[in-house]
Amino acid sequence: MLKLHCFGQSGNAYKVAFALNAMGVEWEPVFVDFMNGITRTAAWRAQSNEMGEVPILEIDGKAQTQSAVILTLLAERFGQFGGRDADEQREIQRWMYFDNHKFTSYFASYRFMKAFGQSAPNPDVMAWLRGRIDGAFGIVDQHLAHSPFIVGARPTIADFSLCGYLFYPVEESGIDVAASYPHIGAWLARLKALPGWGDPYAIMPGERIAAKW
Amino acid sequence: MLKLHCFGQSGNAYKVAFALNAMGVEWEPVFVDFMNGITRTAAWRAQSNEMGEVPILEIDGKAQTQSAVILTLLAERFGQFGGRDADEQREIQRWMYFDNHKFTSYFASYRFMKAFGQSAPNPDVMAWLRGRIDGAFGIVDQHLAHSPFIVGARPTIADFSLCGYLFYPVEESGIDVAASYPHIGAWLARLKALPGWGDPYAIMPGERIAAKW
Repeated sequence: MLKLHCFGQSGNAYKVAFALNAMGVEWEPVFVDFMNGITRTAAWRAQSNEMGEVPILEIDGKAQTQSAVILTLLAERFGQFGGRDADEQREIQRWMYFDNHKFTSYFASYRFMKAFGQSAPNPDVMAWLRGRIDGAFGIVDQHLAHSPFIVGARPTIADFSLCGYLFYPVEESGIDVAASYPHIGAWLARLKALPGWGDPYAIMPGERIAAKW
Repeated sequence: MLKLHCFGQSGNAYKVAFALNAMGVEWEPVFVDFMNGITRTAAWRAQSNEMGEVPILEIDGKAQTQSAVILTLLAERFGQFGGRDADEQREIQRWMYFDNHKFTSYFASYRFMKAFGQSAPNPDVMAWLRGRIDGAFGIVDQHLAHSPFIVGARPTIADFSLCGYLFYPVEESGIDVAASYPHIGAWLARLKALPGWGDPYAIMPGERIAAKW
């Protein structure tokens, strides 16, 4: 049985959880107490992931990390949602790199500080991040104006990657993505209609926390 | 002849330029006037790269983007600096994703605002970025304490990716990386000794600009 080390608030873990469910692959969660700082300890990093991150997927006797690398492995292993040729595989990687660099990253930091930060977020930092978010989200919104999914007419692992943080409650980030970016909103509705979709807090363990700031 | 769309200040383009030189592959530069805003125009994005980024590599009649995707293609195409099996290929991708998400990204933004920003950088934003940089650089420094290169005992495309912004003058970022992170410093010396290494401003076009702030 595949084991996914995850917690409810992690959109990066959700990318993999959603993909596994959409592929119809059985898995069980291993709760990671990220919110209380376990991934920042030297012991956890030495034993689990030196990068200090989730998700971790136990599969075929090995522990894999980095959501995009795991998604690529799952697409190969189960023959679903991958690229059909080298060009399409590259196009998928291209969007997953953009996601990790500019799309998920700034949004995830923004939402974490607003919802779960120890102290009120610094307004200048939030304004800077908001500018970066708007830049990246504008690019994806324009792309989706002409394409039903991230890479062409059918869903791929690139979609699971980019949507990772976008099914959480709007109050956590304070950004109504679907309202601000209508093509992203329509794409999210298409993803939500896929067999296997589930709410992040329903399919991963850990209590939901009300947004703090 | 391969054409690399690039400019001197771009560490992301340098990742590819350094790799091409280390592979002994001939290429010619196409200057991109990023510093005057060309990549932010709708026309450039429509014609060159909807993501608004360099590098772009023209190879085998196609234009490829995203430095990590280009590096992966070059390793396959020229049979150098790639992973020797699926596990090693995944390990390379894992570090290149970490690089794009947390290692290059925050450092590149920090250095850009300090050296080339239109106005003085906001100190709160810089302090926040500096915290993120220290987190990611600490992880890589600790990793390199036990490994001569990013993935094992020989250089791979993961090394070209992570070093992209680290051969620029210290005054541009104001961070003396080699002094602050000794294992990263020793690794950079190993990379500088590779055949094909060149200074970013010597191997890519565009004038050097003195750091502004």
